[in-house]
Amino acid sequence: MALRTYECDGLASYRCTPGVVVLAKTTDDVAYVVSRCAERGIPFVARGSGTGLSGGALPREDGVLIVLSRMNRIVDLAVPDERAVVGPGVINAHLTTAVASDGYYYAPDPSSQQICSIGGNIAENSGGAHCLKYGFTAHHVTGLQVVMPGGSVERFGGLAPDPVGYDVVGALVGSEGTLAVVTEATVRLSRSPQAVQTLLAAFDSIEAAGAAVSAIIAAGVLPAAIEMMDALAIEAAEAAVAPDYPAGAGAVLIVELDGPTCEVEANLADVERLCRQARAYEIRVASNDAERAVIWKGRKSAFAAVGRISPDYIVQDGVIPRTALAQVLAAVEEVATAAGVRVANVFHAGDGNLHPLVLFDESKGETERAETVSNRIIDLCLEHGGSITGEHGVGHDKKLHMGKMFNEIDLDVMQLVRCAFDPDGICNPGKIFPTPRLCGERPGRRSGVHPLQEAGVADVF
Amino acid sequence: MALRTYECDGLASYRCTPGVVVLAKTTDDVAYVVSRCAERGIPFVARGSGTGLSGGALPREDGVLIVLSRMNRIVDLAVPDERAVVGPGVINAHLTTAVASDGYYYAPDPSSQQICSIGGNIAENSGGAHCLKYGFTAHHVTGLQVVMPGGSVERFGGLAPDPVGYDVVGALVGSEGTLAVVTEATVRLSRSPQAVQTLLAAFDSIEAAGAAVSAIIAAGVLPAAIEMMDALAIEAAEAAVAPDYPAGAGAVLIVELDGPTCEVEANLADVERLCRQARAYEIRVASNDAERAVIWKGRKSAFAAVGRISPDYIVQDGVIPRTALAQVLAAVEEVATAAGVRVANVFHAGDGNLHPLVLFDESKGETERAETVSNRIIDLCLEHGGSITGEHGVGHDKKLHMGKMFNEIDLDVMQLVRCAFDPDGICNPGKIFPTPRLCGERPGRRSGVHPLQEAGVADVF
Repeated sequence: MALRTYECDGLASYRCTPGVVVLAKTTDDVAYVVSRCAERGIPFVARGSGTGLSGGALPREDGVLIVLSRMNRIVDLAVPDERAVVGPGVINAHLTTAVASDGYYYAPDPSSQQICSIGGNIAENSGGAHCLKYGFTAHHVTGLQVVMPGGSVERFGGLAPDPVGYDVVGALVGSEGTLAVVTEATVRLSRSPQAVQTLLAAFDSIEAAGAAVSAIIAAGVLPAAIEMMDALAIEAAEAAVAPDYPAGAGAVLIVELDGPTCEVEANLADVERLCRQARAYEIRVASNDAERAVIWKGRKSAFAAVGRISPDYIVQDGVIPRTALAQVLAAVEEVATAAGVRVANVFHAGDGNLHPLVLFDESKGETERAETVSNRIIDLCLEHGGSITGEHGVGHDKKLHMGKMFNEIDLDVMQLVRCAFDPDGICNPGKIFPTPRLCGERPGRRSGVHPLQEAGVADVF
Repeated sequence: MALRTYECDGLASYRCTPGVVVLAKTTDDVAYVVSRCAERGIPFVARGSGTGLSGGALPREDGVLIVLSRMNRIVDLAVPDERAVVGPGVINAHLTTAVASDGYYYAPDPSSQQICSIGGNIAENSGGAHCLKYGFTAHHVTGLQVVMPGGSVERFGGLAPDPVGYDVVGALVGSEGTLAVVTEATVRLSRSPQAVQTLLAAFDSIEAAGAAVSAIIAAGVLPAAIEMMDALAIEAAEAAVAPDYPAGAGAVLIVELDGPTCEVEANLADVERLCRQARAYEIRVASNDAERAVIWKGRKSAFAAVGRISPDYIVQDGVIPRTALAQVLAAVEEVATAAGVRVANVFHAGDGNLHPLVLFDESKGETERAETVSNRIIDLCLEHGGSITGEHGVGHDKKLHMGKMFNEIDLDVMQLVRCAFDPDGICNPGKIFPTPRLCGERPGRRSGVHPLQEAGVADVF
């Protein structure tokens, strides 16, 4: 019965009861479990808080689920070096709380930051509203202690910002638990900005809001965040948490500016002016933290809020070059209308990371239609030079899209990288790649291996 | 005779005449050459401008040197997307020149930026004086077209900031030419800052200058660059390019601030005050671009300048946590004095990237003593939680130090990553790793491979 708790992560449409669940408390616990798995060829899946949205922590019936949420100790705060060493189970927001009084924070801020774990963030290379200015998790991790799929405990990187040899830390971040199990991470601490200003602007249409985004970036302003919500997303947010956004908006923009006070004030004036020029009909600037929190509440609860206006929904996650925003949103609308499906848009407008929410009612047999629309949105992203996932990862959910973005050789290279870490394919198998690969084989594209030609080489060319 | 031009890169103490040199003009040229090499098992080495300082582009007698400096076309400037697509031979500074009138620049700025190529920067994950604030080359490359060691042309990444699947682009950047040959790169363009201020502060001692660095960072100021030079480095710079630094300085700091005018002015006042508190006896602020250029001229020519005061020298490149700066510099001085060797220090103080220059006279038989001091400096960096290279790479020069930083398993994982790209070991072999690895072998640490246990797993734990 207790195992049922772990049968899915944040993407509940895939479920599987794990064979065994281990609640690890120490690196040694993890190393012990993984070693036993390695001896017997048993697959294992690591899990943090289980908030992921691509089924990356979907367990296996024939495997072990290693839950890391009890490894939630902040091991070391090296504030003068601007680094913290944390267990993988440390909740994202707790690290910021721990260093706030020193004038620091941990920058990556997924919407789930109150409950998601830093280990999970590392697995998925999580972004967040503020990654426009501050980058993804990959930019904030400088060292990792991991348990390798063979059971040994290894360290890569450390305090220094630049990796030596191959960037193994970089390869591990975002590898969705398929290369090793992270048991400790060294992460950057960022200086809390001197000032923060948050502005909410209401527009008649998505096009007008999109034009404002382009104008802001073109003016050389780099906000900490630019978020957009369309009318349906606003409706959902109002139904759920009543943030009291301006009535009748076709779209709202949330623009947050942070940095030195004088810069923030100058940029705020620019952003207000540019929004008005783009025909914003109402602009509100939060005058204190409480007002700021209300503005963000609507945005951060948007995914869950959609449950208030639709019995079922798919959260999509695609990326496009920011310059293609207007085109792609129009095309999404067209696809949705043609299929008779409603799509709510909530997204990181500044970096072109779309999160369309495709609404449907399973009891009315609309599931297939919604999935078709959702998949078509991914194709639209690819057609416009974008990608199949911005921050939720490939996991179990999107592995069939991988072949649209990568050819056989590309996928083979990635799988060979995987083989370098996990030759037996026991570390979160069945994720990311559409078809598994046997590690012993030579790369498929090579017809044969020729011995080093001992003669001179000049005659070859 | 022409081949002699290519017998070494910027680290001239290692020389080897290549078997064949190919001056590639197109991706197809590279693919053709690499395919022929792959068919015959002939090793090849890619080379850009040849300014590297770790022997990463050291050729092989039995191999082909693929020179990419003629692939120097800026293929596309997608300014609204803040990206450029460039050939690997494009000179670093030329990209900035090309986008300056649009208000953009290319941020990574190695000292050799007037002559080094972006392809070479990618191979070495080059930093520069401004990487304190703006990061290394890895943070500015979002897509790569490469020729794989099998000869196929592949693309990884693109305009989007977040990689899908494994971060192959991240693994390629800094891989020192051992995984593939880059034939085109998509890089970020950065907004030119509104204001720049450059300050030169003279101190009696390195300790005093170091205290100023700590005070600046602790005050929450993040300069674009903080560079330090000691008395011997200043002497060399004066002998070579006469930047007219304050007389009698035990150390000078160059602090550059950039960003919005109001922030820069506020920070400049803070930095001046903090330098005076740390007992700077002279502070100069450049009042225009010409004065700024003179201040930087001394710093950027420092390595070459040392040739004026010593017949031979070793440029070392190590990293330490910034907080260990004073300790390590004192220890370096102690080691140098005990060995009777002079060491000039020029370095990126802000991020703890040391560049001690170990001076010696080969004709007087001092080489071995200098090498001992140089190696001891690397050991000091490691003892203080640092690393063996900050930005010059491992190349040929530092591969014997790799075993001090990584254990056998770590090195095996990296080499297996290499095998994923280059199973035949023909892509710049003999670099980075102290001992090569046969790719067919299973990882050494596993005693054997166990078949998947078909029975339940619950009994295992």
